[in-house]
Amino acid sequence: MSEPTIRTAIAGYGNLGRGVEAAIAAAPDMSLVGVWTRRDPESITPALPGTTVHPWDSLDEHRDQIDVLVLCGGSKSDLPEQGPALAARFTTVDSFDTHAEIPAYFEAVDSAARAGDTTALISSGWDPGMFSINRVFGESILPQGATYTFWGRGVSQGHSDAVRRVPGVADAVQYTIPSPDAIEQVRSGSLPELTTAQKHTRECFVVLEDSADPDAVTEAIVTMEHYFDAYDTSVTFLTAEELARDHTGMPHGGFVLRSGRTGQGHTQTIEYGLTLESNPEFTASVLVAYARAVHRLHQQGQRGAVTVFDVAPGLLSPKPAAQLRAEDL
Amino acid sequence: MSEPTIRTAIAGYGNLGRGVEAAIAAAPDMSLVGVWTRRDPESITPALPGTTVHPWDSLDEHRDQIDVLVLCGGSKSDLPEQGPALAARFTTVDSFDTHAEIPAYFEAVDSAARAGDTTALISSGWDPGMFSINRVFGESILPQGATYTFWGRGVSQGHSDAVRRVPGVADAVQYTIPSPDAIEQVRSGSLPELTTAQKHTRECFVVLEDSADPDAVTEAIVTMEHYFDAYDTSVTFLTAEELARDHTGMPHGGFVLRSGRTGQGHTQTIEYGLTLESNPEFTASVLVAYARAVHRLHQQGQRGAVTVFDVAPGLLSPKPAAQLRAEDL
Repeated sequence: MSEPTIRTAIAGYGNLGRGVEAAIAAAPDMSLVGVWTRRDPESITPALPGTTVHPWDSLDEHRDQIDVLVLCGGSKSDLPEQGPALAARFTTVDSFDTHAEIPAYFEAVDSAARAGDTTALISSGWDPGMFSINRVFGESILPQGATYTFWGRGVSQGHSDAVRRVPGVADAVQYTIPSPDAIEQVRSGSLPELTTAQKHTRECFVVLEDSADPDAVTEAIVTMEHYFDAYDTSVTFLTAEELARDHTGMPHGGFVLRSGRTGQGHTQTIEYGLTLESNPEFTASVLVAYARAVHRLHQQGQRGAVTVFDVAPGLLSPKPAAQLRAEDL
Repeated sequence: MSEPTIRTAIAGYGNLGRGVEAAIAAAPDMSLVGVWTRRDPESITPALPGTTVHPWDSLDEHRDQIDVLVLCGGSKSDLPEQGPALAARFTTVDSFDTHAEIPAYFEAVDSAARAGDTTALISSGWDPGMFSINRVFGESILPQGATYTFWGRGVSQGHSDAVRRVPGVADAVQYTIPSPDAIEQVRSGSLPELTTAQKHTRECFVVLEDSADPDAVTEAIVTMEHYFDAYDTSVTFLTAEELARDHTGMPHGGFVLRSGRTGQGHTQTIEYGLTLESNPEFTASVLVAYARAVHRLHQQGQRGAVTVFDVAPGLLSPKPAAQLRAEDL
């Protein structure tokens, strides 16, 4: 089973990119060609000694050396542009996580990937990603029932990123918090109807730029479409020192619960939960497992955009199929 | 999206078969051609009014009407014979659950299915099945870590069936029980090394036949290969009335926990848990979702034996792919 190593590269080197770098180092069947960044490569010290850092514009010169490009930009403004552009030239995997925009993003990436004869796996990670898979498993196995997704307590990278882009914001961290009342209702088996906003609240800790108007910043955050407009959102201003002291960890977690009834009216419950000390490192670990899978799909002849729903679990594992059946089934 | 209905049939009509009957009735895109039994069809009253019951030997006459045959026999002696024999003539799904025998069973079914130009999905259900998938997800996403599977407290159909086949046993129920000490060690994050037998005990409640020797029955149970030989197993004898009064429910459950470390040494935990009021009805619900998937794999040209590791999550759902991306991703 000495398959050639899967040659990967990283596009974008923030928290997620550094997590991907570490996850590739932990994969027995993958190598890292390098990191590509829009910043000055000379300004960056990679986390691992063997990692090389390259300027963004040199990416195309390395097409023949890269099997899968792992896109580590943000969903708010990086990926909508980079996803289709890079899928036209590379087999890619990304963690695009603006749920409402996924169908349009899929179409854009799909067209680019088909034209470029590549394969692009979009919206990997844990939500979208592992949580999405568990929503599909739950409703497919227990069609008579209800699904509940809870997030937190934890920092949302996407939401923190969105707050940081608000004019007047110097830095920010956003926490998503499950509502204890809602959890209690769901676990009781009463199958309540709850909106996402009824299940969670959002807390933003914001450092203002010197000249910023706090009221204008608050208004811009709490009314932001898709991100905050439907939620009970609080905004707390603090100093850069306070933010650095109290809000540097990136824990997260949550769970997907499917509660259903079968046959003679028996209640059946499926629960998938994550407790994460580092959200970006976990998201990165999922991305790297799906990098392996999208490379295999490409080798099998699949072209265009795909999602986690299109990936058989065995494709995520470095083990051959017979070994998986013997050891894991 | 008006695909033709998936035409299913049930081979074997015990608790699992009745669960499958109910699950097919709950599926929007499936119909039930009938139930086939080795018993006298006249002696059977089906659970649902529209279900027809047929003699086993007439199955071949209905080949053209059946897209997927759901095998509902036991793993101990039914499926090793029926699995390959029926996969030679039908696209099938089964719940073969003798873990140690899976590779040999896969090979036997694979040969038969390839010769018969059919597709056979083996070892579906929850373990093997959903738990297996979560073992693969866990070790693929968090390669540096350990996986723990706990079962119970609950009735194991396979183990109860095995006890019932011991000479001298009139009836029996077997409970699998997680060890509280082991659960505590695992949740502490200390990554202990534990065998299956260290994580669980087994309790058998047995009704003897009139002439049976209790010591011989106990010895036959506790030394049974694969099922009991490695466990701390207790055998309690009771009357048929006591068994019917106290042990008729079939609850079960358990969880798969993956505890791992990423990047900078952060601990990450994935937990997949089931709380089931009816084990056979839940297993049946999984089988029916995989019946949909194996039909689709067959339509796509896949032939031979496959497992849950070969099935992309989207194939389990009656929803079209674009709807899944919009609603579940």
